[in-house]
This record gives sequence, structure tokens and C-alpha cells, in this order.
Amino acid sequence: MERRFGFGAACCTIAIAALLAAPGSSAQAHNGWNLMPWPANVQPGQGNLHIDSTFTVGLTGYREPRLDRAVQRFLGQLQRRTALVLLNKPPEPEKATLVIHTGQASKEIQELGEDESYSLDVTPAGAKLSAPNPLGVLRGLQTFLQLVDITPDGFAAPAVTVRDQPRFPWRGLMIDVSRHFIPLDVLKRNLDGMEGVKLNVLHLHLSENQGFRIESKRFPKLQELGSDGMYYTQEQMRDLIAYARDRGIRVVPEFDMPGHSTAWFVGYPDLASGPGPYEIERKWGVFDPAMNPTDEKVYRFLDEFIGEMARLFPDHYFHIGGDEVNGKQWNANPQIQSFMKERGIKSNEELQAYFSQRVQKIVTKHGKAVIGWDEVLVPGVPKDIVIQSWRGQESLAKAAKEGYRGILSNGYYLDLGWSAERHYAVDPMSGPAADLTPDEKKSILGGEACMWSEYVDAENIDSRIWPRTAAIAERLWSPQTVTDRDSMYARMEDVSEKLEWLGLTHRTYYRKMLQRIAGPATPEEFAALKTLADVVEPVKDYTRERTAPAEPTSLTPLNRIVDAVPLESDAARHFRESMDRFLSVSCREPAVQSRLHEQFKRWSENDAAFQSLAQRSSLAREGAARSQDLSTLGDIGLEALAILSKGEPGSDAWRAQKTQTIQNILQPKAQLLLLPATSVLDLVDAVSGGNCTPSSRP
Amino acid sequence: MERRFGFGAACCTIAIAALLAAPGSSAQAHNGWNLMPWPANVQPGQGNLHIDSTFTVGLTGYREPRLDRAVQRFLGQLQRRTALVLLNKPPEPEKATLVIHTGQASKEIQELGEDESYSLDVTPAGAKLSAPNPLGVLRGLQTFLQLVDITPDGFAAPAVTVRDQPRFPWRGLMIDVSRHFIPLDVLKRNLDGMEGVKLNVLHLHLSENQGFRIESKRFPKLQELGSDGMYYTQEQMRDLIAYARDRGIRVVPEFDMPGHSTAWFVGYPDLASGPGPYEIERKWGVFDPAMNPTDEKVYRFLDEFIGEMARLFPDHYFHIGGDEVNGKQWNANPQIQSFMKERGIKSNEELQAYFSQRVQKIVTKHGKAVIGWDEVLVPGVPKDIVIQSWRGQESLAKAAKEGYRGILSNGYYLDLGWSAERHYAVDPMSGPAADLTPDEKKSILGGEACMWSEYVDAENIDSRIWPRTAAIAERLWSPQTVTDRDSMYARMEDVSEKLEWLGLTHRTYYRKMLQRIAGPATPEEFAALKTLADVVEPVKDYTRERTAPAEPTSLTPLNRIVDAVPLESDAARHFRESMDRFLSVSCREPAVQSRLHEQFKRWSENDAAFQSLAQRSSLAREGAARSQDLSTLGDIGLEALAILSKGEPGSDAWRAQKTQTIQNILQPKAQLLLLPATSVLDLVDAVSGGNCTPSSRP
Repeated sequence: MERRFGFGAACCTIAIAALLAAPGSSAQAHNGWNLMPWPANVQPGQGNLHIDSTFTVGLTGYREPRLDRAVQRFLGQLQRRTALVLLNKPPEPEKATLVIHTGQASKEIQELGEDESYSLDVTPAGAKLSAPNPLGVLRGLQTFLQLVDITPDGFAAPAVTVRDQPRFPWRGLMIDVSRHFIPLDVLKRNLDGMEGVKLNVLHLHLSENQGFRIESKRFPKLQELGSDGMYYTQEQMRDLIAYARDRGIRVVPEFDMPGHSTAWFVGYPDLASGPGPYEIERKWGVFDPAMNPTDEKVYRFLDEFIGEMARLFPDHYFHIGGDEVNGKQWNANPQIQSFMKERGIKSNEELQAYFSQRVQKIVTKHGKAVIGWDEVLVPGVPKDIVIQSWRGQESLAKAAKEGYRGILSNGYYLDLGWSAERHYAVDPMSGPAADLTPDEKKSILGGEACMWSEYVDAENIDSRIWPRTAAIAERLWSPQTVTDRDSMYARMEDVSEKLEWLGLTHRTYYRKMLQRIAGPATPEEFAALKTLADVVEPVKDYTRERTAPAEPTSLTPLNRIVDAVPLESDAARHFRESMDRFLSVSCREPAVQSRLHEQFKRWSENDAAFQSLAQRSSLAREGAARSQDLSTLGDIGLEALAILSKGEPGSDAWRAQKTQTIQNILQPKAQLLLLPATSVLDLVDAVSGGNCTPSSRP
Repeated sequence: MERRFGFGAACCTIAIAALLAAPGSSAQAHNGWNLMPWPANVQPGQGNLHIDSTFTVGLTGYREPRLDRAVQRFLGQLQRRTALVLLNKPPEPEKATLVIHTGQASKEIQELGEDESYSLDVTPAGAKLSAPNPLGVLRGLQTFLQLVDITPDGFAAPAVTVRDQPRFPWRGLMIDVSRHFIPLDVLKRNLDGMEGVKLNVLHLHLSENQGFRIESKRFPKLQELGSDGMYYTQEQMRDLIAYARDRGIRVVPEFDMPGHSTAWFVGYPDLASGPGPYEIERKWGVFDPAMNPTDEKVYRFLDEFIGEMARLFPDHYFHIGGDEVNGKQWNANPQIQSFMKERGIKSNEELQAYFSQRVQKIVTKHGKAVIGWDEVLVPGVPKDIVIQSWRGQESLAKAAKEGYRGILSNGYYLDLGWSAERHYAVDPMSGPAADLTPDEKKSILGGEACMWSEYVDAENIDSRIWPRTAAIAERLWSPQTVTDRDSMYARMEDVSEKLEWLGLTHRTYYRKMLQRIAGPATPEEFAALKTLADVVEPVKDYTRERTAPAEPTSLTPLNRIVDAVPLESDAARHFRESMDRFLSVSCREPAVQSRLHEQFKRWSENDAAFQSLAQRSSLAREGAARSQDLSTLGDIGLEALAILSKGEPGSDAWRAQKTQTIQNILQPKAQLLLLPATSVLDLVDAVSGGNCTPSSRP
């Protein structure tokens, strides 16, 4: 759903070129300052606060159990990061190493726009964290945790003064738990990650054609027949909401209607606009079934159901979806057609507007405000609605001009496989929004990263969300002026590791999934698989559907190389950066040449072990052609270096031949892009010019 | 405790030499047959059973909820291993892919010696698992799971006929949860691992000088003052026991007395033989405090306490420890001395025997049978006692001759850092036990691997227990004739990976701990750390205490390289095997020479990135000298290859100089052994002889 971007296959190459355009700096340069999101104000101090097992935390000012739990959680996180044994027995709170002062309580149910500011002062003698309310304390604790690193003298946090508050009040992550069910513990570790990068809304896409994921006690056939037994009980959901509240995170439920709703109809076919029976949908896409907007019993059902859910989910906002109704069932239903005629409803869009208005009234009756995808913004809709824009910044700006509040998700779709850099460049206030009046700008509340789950399950979801969501989180928290790409990557690479210490598994599971693919392999075979996997990425945007070897369904195992590899390759980015430096600065330096030579040689020789693995493992075999391509890139690289070392340009025939070979390699195989191909092409161009400056290619 | 082995520092070199003595075969050779423990009877069939999302399991015969949970757990494990989506909806149980038939119920409380046999028949058309009772089903399911691997045609299990039952009825793992507290979830994942290799007793060492780890409702100061808040509630323990029972594993509690008991005395100083007050002990070793065997109120206390624990722990066996009383408090207490005189008790050993007999009566009164360390075997002790031998096979055989049953732990101490091979060679029936009569042999019930936890915490305990415990488990389950070292290593390496899919973290956390040591490092720096870490091992036996840079305590963080690296290095073993092959077979083959050359070059060049890391991280800096040593080994290796390629022997002076250098490298630094040193020494010897045959060294 919400997925009909207009990118063709050509976009991929462009995206990679954009991804790899600029040189980066190493994480090392930022040692001790790998904060993400970058705070509003940071002033470095002198020296370090040493952290050892005598480290303590004390709470002063306003107290509540949530703060005690926050301190315990923080100590647990610090202990995991450092392995220090922290008994935390300060003589009194004011004498702790880290003294926290909280002004007063936050709201009993977290509200949009609550103060999240804090100030953090670290000196070699101790640290002080102050915040008006517990939300700021939560934010500041995560900043402190990111400051801690290993140093030449053990663990320490650098002396620093931080004054910080968010730029936008709505900083969200949407997880589609319906196409693939995402177990509770996976959501919890993602809440830990969200807390780590100061996100404050978890939006759960709870119903879809492929599954209905929350227990209704009033209408139990929703989950009993619509979920294959994979749903959250109300007790589990209350537990999750409490877990999120402890971390300063609101939970917004979404029930997508009138479309994307086949799973409802398995248990309650009468809600639909066409005759049943219905089954849980196993395929992906937009399907015909939609609720019947002309049937009063549908509204009676929704009244009861929304009432039940409004009691379960304390948040003020209630998401009603509203996207992508194809209208086929409505067109085919004579009763609906005559209803439209009677009422002068001229199009399916108008019919959906009628439905939306009815549902909005129900939501309002139950004390909540509506949020919905672009499509719910129709003339006459009340002003307290919030629009979630998947269509683009244009529609967000238009809504703001009409006085509607909105959040941006266009540009933050994690499943499209964009680079962090590309997401990072999307600013809710840029483009059409830049021309809004200051008052209109206030309507833009922030944004949400969206994790649609066709190709995502409990195992690889972390690596699809993280670390790129940290870059989006920075966009939504940090000042608009924080835009340096190199700094972002350097910090993100470190924060990615720190997120694993918070409990996320995006790095760990990459390796484990490769081990599954390899099976009982020799170390050399496994290394060959990893060498290839490290420099490929899944095809981008919606290419995966189009290039699938067989039609994918919700029962297709996500155990292929394309499911295991990160959506953005660190190794490929590093290689690109090295190559750019090589071509622009250091291509005459023997040491640099020699390192590159080694890299190419490794690629060239990698295929032998890979093919041996491919003979035993069907999952590895799928990558065999890509492995040959990597080997070919290695060979071409070695040839190019040999030419370079002779000091004479490569022949035109050589250049043409190699360029054609690499152009072929630039095409996806096994739904994988081989990232280093563009850089090797640059190298071919450069040596063909007889010098080290890359020729410019369109 | 139980640790006073007589090995000196010299043992280490010998141990390494033993470890590296024989060539191994690759895991690949055993594809599809990586079973561990190896079953009593295995007959290969024709073809494979293909495993895809249509795979189902059906239960026939005797049914109980535990069997349903076992099937669900098995399906979850299979799903994790393969990522297949298994909805498991067979038309009827008899038509499932895997049909299970269970004869009848097992005992309500699992008993020593219950039938654990099963038969498993896999054909390309389906599989059948039959067992007299649920215990055999549990064992057979794990065999099936180990059979599944990735193949050229997807996941499959080879056709096979297995008839299997254990050699010994007591196959245990003892975990010391007192010196370092081990959280409940860590115990649970280790229970999953134990089930995976068919162990059936979890022995928990619940009290020590450094901590008292179980809630007593009758004497709450035991845990309140004796645990730093780190203990299991009774509810948690009941949950753990149920978890273990589901996996066919008994839980045997140990309360060590009269020594090793300081933590009891923090809350109840009157139990001790010397005046208090007492504090939780932070250091390691044997300490003076001991219970007062002459005080009737001690027995009244123990009666109530043992009664409470006997109700909590359903197992028939109750471990009373009994080891290592140094007697100093007894000697210093005039009242105890006069008690001994009055009763004609001539030694502290006799006094302890008196205490043991009193405690045994209490245990018997509460319906349990005593198990204790060697020391509890004193004249006149009842025959239903079980001796756990930490002192040696001699004492086990002696006990058996006297009609006492026993289990072997000598030779299975995991904390000593022995190789799997060395543990594997220890057989409870070998040595002195081989001469026992058949009846006496029946007294030897099996053995227990012991995980003492001075240098073990929640993070690295898995890598201290696994995978070596799989080799011990095979020793205790498989026929005595299953002894091939190469086969063991090949299978263990694969099973090690499979154990991670069951939830263990021995491989994952190795990497994570290295990442903590590296901090925000460049990829090259991290790779340099890993290259070194992969070929070192912690010092063996009790060398760590003797070589510690500062006196270690329970508050010392376990975050050093020595804490992170596995106790047995796969990479070092592979290198040794390669070198042995090289020297004995293939040293004239250019391809093999070239691979070795690359390896030495990598080591030689590794130090540059390591030293850069060492400048930033104090945890890495500790390994700097070892990194230089590895670099030196690389250099020597390169020199040796150069000499070899000339076809002339190296000079005596060269040999002498390199030998001296390597002898120095053989010494531990940073409490780490650099494993490849012995192989490089062999190479030096070989090339100095002017040929490829290694000279024999004493």
C-alpha cells in the first residue's frame, strides 16, 4: 500500500551514483562525538568523565516510578555497552556521578508537542542532566549513553555542554505488522532503538489484506479467522503501550479502511461490498475487496469496534488508513451504484469521502482525532484531522495551506532501499513547504519513517529499519542546518553499532542469515559468501516485485541473499570513497595502489570458493552469477592498475570492451545490485584517459 | 571450588601441542550427517526428504500437552533454521511429513535412568519417530533437526534409519550461578542447548562465598543480604524447572556446605564457626568461613531450609556440596575444639564427616537422596548417596568398588580452557574404572561438565560452555567406541552453528565483545583485532589467577580480549591442520605455498592497523604485544617460505635465532596464548632441515 512511486528501473543506477558521490570521513575522526540525532547546541568542554564501576546515577527533583525504571534501564544499557559491574549505590542522589534533575510530571497520556528539552553538562568531575519533565530526561540519558566510548584510559564521556530540544513534535516510525506479523519482542527492541535516536511515535499498521493483528473481544472472528493465529492479545498490546510510554513513545494504531481490508472479511464477510466468502490474502498488491460505505450495519460495526480500540489505545490519534481503494467492488455492486445515484455521489472518490466523514464522526465520538493517508483529505473534512503524506511534499504543503496539519512519509519509505543519504536529504520543510507562511509551517508536525513488510519478517526487519532510520530521526530532531552527509555517515556507522547494544539485531542477523545460506561450509566458503554479500544491495524501489523469479507471497521464505544483505552496503560506500580519493588524489601513490590491487585480487579470486559453496547450497547458488561478476570486476580492476602502472593510456578497444562488460554487470541479477561496478567503470575511464582524473560521465 | 588441579604453567604448552597434533577433515565432508551426539545406530538410506513450507508434524499414540509444546518448539526451531513459513496443518496426524508415535507417559517427576530411546526413520516420502515415552521423542526431534541442512535442492534431511539410546543415564551440566549471577534467560537458552545435545541434568550451584542465588521465604536474609539483589525468585525457579522438564532435563540444586558459605553468613552470622559480621566475598579462592557443625541450631536451620528447598525442587537428588573446607575457623573456635575432644573426633575431616551425616539425615527426612562432591564419601555414609568426582577417576572407581554410585566431573571442567579433544578423551569407564566388575560399572552413572564462573558472566558464558560441551555430551551419550577426533571436530563445528539457531550466543557474542573492545573503529582496525583474536586462547587451567595484572574480583569487568575469545580457537586448529598437511604432504605445491604465504603476509601486516586501534582503546592496547608477536610469526613464516623456495636449508644461526624468538612468543602475554607459534616453530625446524619433513622435537 501507499507504494505507487513512479520510478523505473533506471532510477537504481542514478540512486547508486548519488549514494556514492562524496568522500566520507572515518568514524574514528568523531571518536566520542558520535551523537545522533545531533543536538541543537553542543559546546565541547575540557577533558573526560571517566566511567568505571564506581559510576552512579541519582534522581533529584520530581520523582515517579517511570524515572526509576529509566535509570535502571540506562544503567543496564551502560553495563551492556561497557561490561562494567555497576552496583549504583551513591551515598545520596546529589552526590552521584550523574545527577538528574526533573522539574515536574509530564502528561498522563503523552501528548503531541509536549516539552522534550533537556540540558546535559558533563565535566571530568561529574555530569548533570536537567529537564522540565521526564520526557527530556529520557532524551538526555540517550545522549549521555552515546557520548560514552572506549578511550586510551578506559571508558569515558567527553566533557560537554548540551542544550537540546526537537525540531518537530511528531517523529515516528510506522511498522506494518500485518503483511508479515512482527512478534512483540521484536517491536520492543525496536522501541529501544527508537528511544535511542529520540523518536516518539510508533505507528502500528494493524490490519491489511494479509492479516488482522489485534485481538477484538467484541468481534473475535477478526483475529481468529484473519490472522493465522498471529496477532497481539489486548494484554500484550497494553504491555507494549506501557513499554513505549516508559520510553517516551506514543503508540498510534492504524486500521486501514475501506480498502486493504480483506482480512476483516474472512470473519465478517457482510462488511464487504462484494459477495464472500473471503480468505486471507497471500499475495501482494492492491486488491478489490472494500468495505460497503452504503451499509448502515458497517457503521454500527465500526462504531463498536472503534470504541473498543479507542479504549485499548490511549493515544489521542487514531489512524483510519484510507488509501488505495480501486473501486472495483463498488462499481460491480448495483445497490452501491443506486445509493450513489440517489445521493448525487458522482465518483468513487466522493463515495470514499462520504465513508471517511462517517468514520471520522465515529472516531470523534470516541474521543479521538483522526489521522489518515492523503486520501482522507477531502473537502469539508474537520480541521483537527492529521494528514500522513505518502504521495509527496506537494500534498503536504497544500494541506497546510488549507489549515490542515500533516506529517511527511514520502521520502521516508524504508522498504524502497534508498540510501541513508537520500532519506536524509528529504526535509519536511523543503520544496513546496519552504514557501509556506510561518503560521502554515506550524501545521507541519514532522514525519514518519515507514516500514512496509512484504519482504520483511522478524529476522530481517531490524536491518531494514536500522541504521537508516537514525538518519531520518536526525532530520526530524536536529536543526534544519544539520545536513553534512559525511558527518552523518561517520556518526551513523558508530550509532549503528551502539543500537545493537540496545538490543537490535541488524548486524548480528545479517551474519546469521549468511550462515543459513552457507550451511555447513568451510571458513573459506563462508568468507567468499560474505565478501560478495558485503558489496551487493537489493534492487531498489518496487523493482523486486517486477523481477521476482516466482510470484512472491506471504508464505515465501525470506531466506535469500537479497533478504539477508543490508539495504545499504557500508563496504561498497567505503570502496567508492576510497576509489574517489584514489582517482582524485592518490592514484600515483604505490601504497594506495597496492591496497587497491589487493582488493581487486581478493575479488578476482573470490569466485572459486563461492562456486564450491554454490554447488552445495541452493540459497548460495542464486548468487553464483553475481560472484562471477565480482570476479570480473576484480580482473578488470587488476588490468586497469597494470595499465596505470605502465604510464600509458589504455586502448580505446580495451575501454569499449570493459565498459560494455561493466554495463552488463550494472544490471541486477538475483535481484541484487553489484555496487562496486560504477567505481570500476570510473577507474576504466580514468586509466583510458591515461591519467588519474576520472572522465565525467553523464 | 573443586579446582585444585596440580598443573603448572608447563601444562599449557603441552595442552596446545596435544590440541594441534592431528589433521582434521572439513565440515563439508559430513554434510547432512553432522549429528552430535552420534547415535547408537545409524543406517544411511537412499535420497533426501525435501523440507519446504508444506512440512507438517503429527502426533499419534500417547498424547500430553508437553508433546504438543515439543512439536511447537521443534517447528519454531526448524523455522528459525530455515526461515520457512510452517503453518503445520496436516489433514490428520498420520499423514504428516513427520509422524511421531509415543508409547506412554514418562514419570511425573523425571527419574534417573528413565528410558530415553527412540527410533527415527527418514525416507524421501516422509519420516517416522517412535519412542516408548515423551523423553525419547524429545531426543529424536533434536536428531531430526540436526539432520536438516541446506542442499543443492533446498532444505532436506537425508534418508536414514536411526536406533538410539544413551550410554549413561546422568548427563549433566553444572553452572555456577553464584560467583557471577547468571540471569534466568541465559539459563533458559542453555537448557535449549542442552536439549540440542541430549543432556538431561542441569545442576545449579546456588550458593557460594560470593553469592546466595535463590529466594528463601523462610530465611529471606539469605538472598536479601547475600546476593546484591541478584537471585532467582521461587516463582522464577519453578518456571525454569518447568522449562527444563519440557526439554527432558532434571534440575538438581546444590547448596554448598559447610564451606563455600560466606554469603549465607551475611544474613545469618550465627551459622558460622567464627564471629561475624560477614560481607559478601568479592575475591576468588578458598576462604575460612564455615558452618558450625557442633551447633544444634545450625541443624534446625538447615532442617527448615532444606525442607523448603526440597519442596521447591522436585528432583529426587539434592546436592550438598561438601568440598574444600580449610578448617581454620574450626581450629580457632574453642567450643568446637572441646566438642571434638568430647566426642573423640580426631580431625577436621572427621568433623566434616559428622556434619555430612547429620545433613544427609535431614535431606533423607525430606524425601531426597544426597549427592555431593568427593569429600562427602566418608565411612558409614548410606549407599543411596551419589558421589560427584572432581578429584579424579581413581576416587570414582574406588567409590564404585565400595558400592557407591558416582558421576565424573574430573576432566570435564569447562573453565580450565581445555580443548574439546582433551575433554572428549576422558571416558568415565576408562582408567581405573576399566577394571571394575560389570556390576560395579553400573554404579558409574555418567558425568557432568562443570562451568565455574570466576571469569564467566551472562555475556560470555555461552562461549565457555559451547561448543565444547557438545563433545562431552557425545562422550556421555554415544557408544564408547565413538572416539574419532577428526570426525568429532568436523561435526562439532557444524553443531556449534546449529546451537546458535537454538538461541545460544557463543559466536554472536564473541563478535560483539570484540566490537566493544574496538569501539568506534575503522573496518581495517576491527579486522586487525579479529585476526589476532581468532588465533589466541586464554591461558589454561588455573594460570589466570596467577598471572592477573591486578587481583580479580567479582566486580572486575569481563570485557578484555581474554574474556572475549573462545577457549578453543577454530582458526588456530585449522592453521595447525593446514601446516601439518603442508609439512607432511604438500610443501612443494606452489598453490599451497602461495596460500600460506598470503596468511603469513596478512599476519605480518596486521599489526599496523592493530597498533592504531591500540592507541585509542585501552581494551585493545592490552593485546598490542601479542599483535606484534603475530606479526613476528608472519615475518618468520615468510622467511621460512623464502628459504624453502630456494631449495637450500636455513642456516643453524637462523634456526637458533628464530627458535628463541618463537620460544618467547610461546609464553603467555595479556593472559593470552598465541596458538600458531608451535606450527611456525615446526616450519622453522622443517626448512632448517632443508626439506619439508618436520624434525621431531621432544
